[in-house]
Amino acid sequence: MRAADGPDEIHAAMRYALTGGKRLRGFLVLESARLHGVSAGAPVEAAAATEALHAYSLVHDDLPCMDDDDLRRGRPTVHVKWDEATAVLVGDALQTLAFGLLADPVCHPDAGVRCRLIAGLAEASGARGMVLGQAQDIAAETAETPLALDGIEALQANKTGALIVWSATAGAHLADADPDPMRRYADALGRAFQIADDILDVEGTAEEVGKAVGKDQGAGKATFVSLLGLDGAKARARDLVEEACAALDPFGSDAETLRHCARFVVSRDR
Amino acid sequence: MRAADGPDEIHAAMRYALTGGKRLRGFLVLESARLHGVSAGAPVEAAAATEALHAYSLVHDDLPCMDDDDLRRGRPTVHVKWDEATAVLVGDALQTLAFGLLADPVCHPDAGVRCRLIAGLAEASGARGMVLGQAQDIAAETAETPLALDGIEALQANKTGALIVWSATAGAHLADADPDPMRRYADALGRAFQIADDILDVEGTAEEVGKAVGKDQGAGKATFVSLLGLDGAKARARDLVEEACAALDPFGSDAETLRHCARFVVSRDR
Repeated sequence: MRAADGPDEIHAAMRYALTGGKRLRGFLVLESARLHGVSAGAPVEAAAATEALHAYSLVHDDLPCMDDDDLRRGRPTVHVKWDEATAVLVGDALQTLAFGLLADPVCHPDAGVRCRLIAGLAEASGARGMVLGQAQDIAAETAETPLALDGIEALQANKTGALIVWSATAGAHLADADPDPMRRYADALGRAFQIADDILDVEGTAEEVGKAVGKDQGAGKATFVSLLGLDGAKARARDLVEEACAALDPFGSDAETLRHCARFVVSRDR
Repeated sequence: MRAADGPDEIHAAMRYALTGGKRLRGFLVLESARLHGVSAGAPVEAAAATEALHAYSLVHDDLPCMDDDDLRRGRPTVHVKWDEATAVLVGDALQTLAFGLLADPVCHPDAGVRCRLIAGLAEASGARGMVLGQAQDIAAETAETPLALDGIEALQANKTGALIVWSATAGAHLADADPDPMRRYADALGRAFQIADDILDVEGTAEEVGKAVGKDQGAGKATFVSLLGLDGAKARARDLVEEACAALDPFGSDAETLRHCARFVVSRDR
C-alpha cells in the first residue's frame, strides 16, 4: 500500500494501530475503576488513553531504525502496510491523542484529577519512563556485556512496568482513593508479564504470539530466561503472580477478576 | 557519534534539540502572558512546553523517512549527530515533556486552566493539527498536481499555524481572558511567517537560514512564492503583518513588542 496521503489515510492508519492486541492496559483501567466504585462509562477515556499510548510505543518500536519488526498483533506493522513516515506520524498522533483524551472534561469532572492522571502518564511514558526503557533496551543489544538481572528489571520497569502501573492505579486516582495497593499489584503483574514475554519468545510460535519470536535468543541478548533458565523463569513468574494477588487482599473477593488477570498473564499464549 | 546509549545520552540529545532557534513560540507565550497581566515567572512552563513540542516536530520532520534534512538551526540534525532511533525517541520524549510541563501545578494553580491548555495543545499538535499538516505536506510532494493557494493555506494552518496560535493565546488562557484578539493576531502572524519562510527558501543561504534552502523549488513544489511570485509574496506578507498589528488595537501601546515581533517575522534572515 502507498503512503498515507492525507487526513483520511492517517486516521485509517491510527485505527489500524489501535486494533487487536490483548488490551491489558485498558482492561486494568476499567477493572481498577470498577473496584473503586467509579461508575461504568466514566473510566473509558482513561482506558482509551493508555491503549493509545501503548499503540504509539509499539508503532515506533517496530520501526526499521528501532526493533525492525514486520509483524504485530498478527498483522503487518504500520510501516510495512503504509511506510515509515506514516508510522512516525501515526505514533506521534496517538501519543497526542492519549493526552488529549485525559484533558477532556468527559474523562473526569475534576480537572485536578485529570491533571494528576496526565502528569502520571507523562512520567510513565517520557525520558524517565518508557522512552528511557526503550533506549536502555537498544543500548543493551549492542553492549559488550549482557545485562545482569537487576539491569533487566530496571529496564523493564521503565519500558513496560510504568505504563502498567499507571493503568492499574488510574481507577484509584479517578476515585481519589489510595493508589498504593494497586501500585503493588501492578508492579508484580508487570514483572510477571515481562518474564512471560521472554518465555513466549522461546516457547511460542510467531503465529500464536502474533509477532516475531526467538529474536532475543538469536541476538544473544540477556533475558529472564537466559539468566534464570526456563524453569527458573516460570517459577519466578508464578511467585510474582502470588505477590500480585496478595496485594489485592484489601479488596477481598471483589478483586477476583484482577487475580484472574494476573494468572492469565503468565499462562497466555500470545 | 554513536547511538544514545542510555539515559544520559537521551537527555543530552533532548537538550541539543532544544538549543538554538528563534524561540518565537516561547516568546509569544511570555509576551502574551505579560500583556494579560500574568506575573513574571508564571508562564515559563507553558513557554517551555511549546518550545519542547516544536523541537519534537523538527526532530521528527528532519528524519530521513520524512524531509531528510541534515542541517537544523545551523547544526547537524539529531539523527545525523546521533542516529535515527535516538531521533525518534528524543522527539517522543520531547512531546511527552510538553504535556508533562503543562500538567504540573507550577504551570498554573488552577487545574482547569492547565487542562484547557493541554486540550488546546493536543488539538494543535495531533491528527487534526500539526501531524495532519505534515502528512498533507508529504502528500503534496508526491501529488501529480501542485496545491493551489487555498490548499497551501490549509496545510500551513495545520502544520505551523495551530501551534503559533496556541502559543499566542496561552497568555490569555493563563489570565482567564478572552483569547480572541490574540487568536486573530497569531493567525495572521503564522501566515506571514510561512510566506517569509518560502521567501527565505528562495533568497536565503543555508548559512544564514541554518537549514537547507532551495528544496521546494528543486522539488517543483507549490509555495507562496511559486504561486504569487516573489513580489506578490512579499506584498502579501506585509499585508498580513498589518492585519496582525491591527488585531492588537485593544491592547494599545502595551502590545508594541508583539507588533515588532510581527515585523521581525517578515524581515528576518533566518
